Amino acid sequence: MAFWDDLNALALAQFRPGVLSRAKLGQGLVMACLEIGPGLADQGHEHNFEQCGVLLSGSIEMFIGDEQRVLAPGEAYFIPAGARHGWRTLDEPARLLDVCAKPA
Amino acid sequence: MAFWDDLNALALAQFRPGVLSRAKLGQGLVMACLEIGPGLADQGHEHNFEQCGVLLSGSIEMFIGDEQRVLAPGEAYFIPAGARHGWRTLDEPARLLDVCAKPA
Repeated sequence: MAFWDDLNALALAQFRPGVLSRAKLGQGLVMACLEIGPGLADQGHEHNFEQCGVLLSGSIEMFIGDEQRVLAPGEAYFIPAGARHGWRTLDEPARLLDVCAKPA
Repeated sequence: MAFWDDLNALALAQFRPGVLSRAKLGQGLVMACLEIGPGLADQGHEHNFEQCGVLLSGSIEMFIGDEQRVLAPGEAYFIPAGARHGWRTLDEPARLLDVCAKPA
């Protein structure tokens, strides 16, 4: 299916505890709508592919290399290949559209 | 810069007549915020890389293969490699976050 309905209302499925997701797996791109529950964190990791996206609703603290920000809706991020990055949700869920180049 | 401010207010530069853009060029991903003026159209084209994105504001009619939709803000699209696709703006500008796998 080429189109997705409003991402803010899109039905998502359980992906990991506290994380809902719907993903479109292409040959080289993965487009995912994610909703991360409050109070969760990824202390940091890195991978050899690039990733980017935009926060749709809520808020999320994110670091990419030595840059850090609490994102507001509409703010976007770009994670270079190999850059250490992580995130932390605060007291509300964060919904994002996230796109990555599929791992080789 | 790892983060972009609110895409709805982000300053963009002239890219083509009637089209403003700001892009982040990665090794394998291109993340672009685009604003397409009203009354413009791309009758259709195809390329061998995948592309996806979300409409941030305004509206845009888009077709991908044999699927067609007038997108509202928050709606997303995924263009498979090789799929013919095109778009037409209506009476207001369309602002999008668009991501593609960089042409090889």
